[in-house]
Amino acid sequence: MQTAPPAPLVMSRVAFLGLGAIGSPMARHLATAPSALVVWNRTAQRAEAFAAAHGVTAARSPADAVRGATVVITCLPTSKEVEALLGGPGGILEGIGAGTVFVDCTSGDPETSARIATRLGAVGVSFLDAPVSGGTSGAEAGTLTVMVGGDAGVLDQVRPVLQRFGQKIVHCGPVGAGHALKAVNNAMLATHIWATAEGLAVAAKAGVDPAVALEVINASSGRSNASMNLFPERVLSRAFPRTFRLALLDKDVGIAADVARAARVPAPLLQLTAELFRLAHDALGDAADHVEAVKVVEQWAHQELAPSAADRWRGA
Amino acid sequence: MQTAPPAPLVMSRVAFLGLGAIGSPMARHLATAPSALVVWNRTAQRAEAFAAAHGVTAARSPADAVRGATVVITCLPTSKEVEALLGGPGGILEGIGAGTVFVDCTSGDPETSARIATRLGAVGVSFLDAPVSGGTSGAEAGTLTVMVGGDAGVLDQVRPVLQRFGQKIVHCGPVGAGHALKAVNNAMLATHIWATAEGLAVAAKAGVDPAVALEVINASSGRSNASMNLFPERVLSRAFPRTFRLALLDKDVGIAADVARAARVPAPLLQLTAELFRLAHDALGDAADHVEAVKVVEQWAHQELAPSAADRWRGA
Amino acid sequence: MQTAPPAPLVMSRVAFLGLGAIGSPMARHLATAPSALVVWNRTAQRAEAFAAAHGVTAARSPADAVRGATVVITCLPTSKEVEALLGGPGGILEGIGAGTVFVDCTSGDPETSARIATRLGAVGVSFLDAPVSGGTSGAEAGTLTVMVGGDAGVLDQVRPVLQRFGQKIVHCGPVGAGHALKAVNNAMLATHIWATAEGLAVAAKAGVDPAVALEVINASSGRSNASMNLFPERVLSRAFPRTFRLALLDKDVGIAADVARAARVPAPLLQLTAELFRLAHDALGDAADHVEAVKVVEQWAHQELAPSAADRWRGA
Amino acid sequence: MQTAPPAPLVMSRVAFLGLGAIGSPMARHLATAPSALVVWNRTAQRAEAFAAAHGVTAARSPADAVRGATVVITCLPTSKEVEALLGGPGGILEGIGAGTVFVDCTSGDPETSARIATRLGAVGVSFLDAPVSGGTSGAEAGTLTVMVGGDAGVLDQVRPVLQRFGQKIVHCGPVGAGHALKAVNNAMLATHIWATAEGLAVAAKAGVDPAVALEVINASSGRSNASMNLFPERVLSRAFPRTFRLALLDKDVGIAADVARAARVPAPLLQLTAELFRLAHDALGDAADHVEAVKVVEQWAHQELAPSAADRWRGA
Repeated sequence: MQTAPPAPLVMSRVAFLGLGAIGSPMARHLATAPSALVVWNRTAQRAEAFAAAHGVTAARSPADAVRGATVVITCLPTSKEVEALLGGPGGILEGIGAGTVFVDCTSGDPETSARIATRLGAVGVSFLDAPVSGGTSGAEAGTLTVMVGGDAGVLDQVRPVLQRFGQKIVHCGPVGAGHALKAVNNAMLATHIWATAEGLAVAAKAGVDPAVALEVINASSGRSNASMNLFPERVLSRAFPRTFRLALLDKDVGIAADVARAARVPAPLLQLTAELFRLAHDALGDAADHVEAVKVVEQWAHQELAPSAADRWRGA
Repeated sequence: MQTAPPAPLVMSRVAFLGLGAIGSPMARHLATAPSALVVWNRTAQRAEAFAAAHGVTAARSPADAVRGATVVITCLPTSKEVEALLGGPGGILEGIGAGTVFVDCTSGDPETSARIATRLGAVGVSFLDAPVSGGTSGAEAGTLTVMVGGDAGVLDQVRPVLQRFGQKIVHCGPVGAGHALKAVNNAMLATHIWATAEGLAVAAKAGVDPAVALEVINASSGRSNASMNLFPERVLSRAFPRTFRLALLDKDVGIAADVARAARVPAPLLQLTAELFRLAHDALGDAADHVEAVKVVEQWAHQELAPSAADRWRGA
Repeated sequence: MQTAPPAPLVMSRVAFLGLGAIGSPMARHLATAPSALVVWNRTAQRAEAFAAAHGVTAARSPADAVRGATVVITCLPTSKEVEALLGGPGGILEGIGAGTVFVDCTSGDPETSARIATRLGAVGVSFLDAPVSGGTSGAEAGTLTVMVGGDAGVLDQVRPVLQRFGQKIVHCGPVGAGHALKAVNNAMLATHIWATAEGLAVAAKAGVDPAVALEVINASSGRSNASMNLFPERVLSRAFPRTFRLALLDKDVGIAADVARAARVPAPLLQLTAELFRLAHDALGDAADHVEAVKVVEQWAHQELAPSAADRWRGA
Repeated sequence: MQTAPPAPLVMSRVAFLGLGAIGSPMARHLATAPSALVVWNRTAQRAEAFAAAHGVTAARSPADAVRGATVVITCLPTSKEVEALLGGPGGILEGIGAGTVFVDCTSGDPETSARIATRLGAVGVSFLDAPVSGGTSGAEAGTLTVMVGGDAGVLDQVRPVLQRFGQKIVHCGPVGAGHALKAVNNAMLATHIWATAEGLAVAAKAGVDPAVALEVINASSGRSNASMNLFPERVLSRAFPRTFRLALLDKDVGIAADVARAARVPAPLLQLTAELFRLAHDALGDAADHVEAVKVVEQWAHQELAPSAADRWRGA
């Protein structure tokens, strides 16, 4: 049933919209030949500075950016911003041409993506949702994981473009599958952060130094990426660097919870995690880092998760 | 404030009570000089077979087993069984002598341990709770992690005994701290198993093959020991080997939830996980393995977590 | 700022779409002068039978039904069915005229209602969401409570129509407010049903006959409409009459949960109730009554909520 | 199998320990013939003032109070306080005589009650747990509901005493059954308070004035004692009178949750309610009234539950 894959597009021109913390280093990998790059950003200065630094073109509107482009890439905070760029004067639909492939690297939601795909499809444009993981460091190194939803043949056409910033390009399923998987991964991260905080707080109340508890857990079956990488460096140290906003993780958990409900999957842990991160985001504000959610657990438990009783430590 | 540690006990005689799946390989490491080993088991044949195989003595009652022992080690299903061995004719209290150290390697609960410690303390016996992690393979290799609650000086006295089956001996805090930490670790494992199952089910409904989803998650921030080690080998493969009973994990999550409530730590994720594993244990029965809990999520979601759509896979 | 209310519409012609268990008795109240009634139903025989019995007209399509009507009333299972009737050949938009008032008595959802209102508004039609409570008996008696969302002036125009089947007509707020309040009320009902079942099961395990427990609770602070009216007549009696489908209550709780999430209201009890009713609906099937959800609690607890130990009863 | 009930005790002397907000008006009903009343209170002045006002005797210790009494009644904050009065110099066990009936009207917990019953039984004293509902007004009017656990024949012996302050005396089951049922009733109250607050907050976000929402709910299926009696008078009015402390409701919900877990009843709503009231108690402090828990929901939702938009109201 497999047919020969379509030939990759001739990528004479790539448009990149959204030069934020992740988008900007991604776009840098596309700033060199063989393709011409046109960038656009809501705050025009940012696009102009990028264009000047990398010898590419800054467009004055989304329509101008995408006009003549073979591939359009968006990287925005939420699907809502992507949808908002489509219509109106100077919008994407004003400039985009049939045959273009639209790749949305936003950590968006499947429902909005389905609407976007329909609108683009009506003018002959293919849509892929293609959120990335790997953070700013992965974006800079060009080693992102890209989770792609949409037609596999279309993905094959643009794979060479995605490979310029992505090390692992995974076709996940139909439109929305990439967004769903990204949201699910982040929801699991959120659950693990909260569960680890609860566990350390409970252990501390039973007299276990959080540093000791974490060391034992990280040598045992309860360990996770959160317990091994985030808690030692960010929580026990009280450093809480701001690398990925709690507001965005709240959004992602909410997307996963919405998909679960729409798909009729009973997911009580996921739904509860969504409530907890909503609370934490509200309590800690928009600037807080995602790991700072543990501060809510600490406050509720009246228990700081710091190596507070070092002299109690008697590890073998 | 640190005083010189007390000299290790002369371990002329060690009693080991409870030759189950973990206890039996632990006891084997104690069957050789310098100490004499006496074993006891509720089913007497098991103790006799062990004694015959290893050239040690099988006692006919707990009292006989502990009489004259410097160190007594118990390894039973729950603290309730340990408590039940103390009193009555032939019970531990009938045979144990002042100055003995009682080491309970059961995955028990802090509240019962406190009562046991009090009763033993009244007759001059020191109590340590010392649950282990590492499974049967760790017990056989003598590489267990031992989480110890109780007096640190007493731990120093018996450390050489524990080191015969434990690679990492960690003093966690006062009596009950070892049991609390073991329960917390296992509760986190339980949460991660359920959260991963929910996540894969949601992703599958959005069109993502569980094998693809798991591969991406295991390269991303949502990974855990559960997702990396348990799901590929046991869930996707549909193997579900029976290595650690769901009934015991249910018990452990319940202990952690009880400690949380007693300590007044609001822990909604932990409490909900306790309810879910109670349900899963009840639905799947006493013989089920802990990872089989995902079958409840699968049933609720009408979604098997198997690599069901391999031809959809198009990883880079 | 209050202006004089607009004069009520001259209701020369009312269209009623959806002759189900609630819709049919509602429509009967509109079958007499002063207005002419036109009915439509997906299953045409039902509309024809109604028309024959009541001397009104059965339309062959939604377009035919609404053509020339001053007021259009819909009463369908969900907002999805309402939305589906709008477009396409023979759809409502084909027949409806500017100035008509569209009253949707479906227990629908605010988000879809907003879309419907927008589409209708574009052709000069006003939209009110107007779900009802009171059940089939209230519909037959014409004593329904009607919860109305939309413009208050428009409500005043059609109030005389609504009063023919509704005793209490409440303006709740803007479009969607009626649907939201109906969903919230039903979600509270669902929470109370489940909480009462949990409570009776716990009490029964402590030795309290469910009949005794219920009698005491109904004389105390824990009582609710569920405990006072549903449990004695339907649960203790094991009668479980089928009057309101669990499938519909599941839908309503889901709507309330969706509104909560969209409105960023942390509502952990509501979200958990949504999961539980999803599970119950799935376990018990589409035909089950809403009160049968307690059977899931009974099964989980291994505890029937019946007056099982009558001889234990010793009420004063 | 029913045998003739034993004759009521000759109640020559009743001891009452605990003259708090509920205990004091209860004791007043016992201050007149036929029985002599001896009272004791931790704060001696309170007992002396009561004795002076009512012409009864104030004892200097629990032992003195119960010496020679036929019936001993306790009414204390928790079972822990009751247990603490038993032993030690001047404790109850020092003064109480075989054949006495001990009636504990505390809103206590079944587990501690079982221990108390065992200790009393060893000296020939019968124990009944007999928590009351009806509040201070019911205590003053002598119209309390009394939920009794323990031997039914023993209850018959003391029924005339209980009837002096109780209108409805219900035998619930074995020792602990009264405490369990009281806790369950209060847990249901707690769930209803929280669910109503969540529901009103969600409705308010959809544009429904809380006063309108409450009026509709109270005419519909989602109503409860909480929505009908507590919310109009205490929440919408912003009066929040302090009649029953949140700290005590938190305790009661915790007891119900503990019984559920011990009885292996999966009760996710109850367990979650326990977490929420723990949080609310902690956030609002020991002096807060139980209904003030809604303030936490208001804060989380950024939505006051007051009739804030009265001009929007357009009820029929």
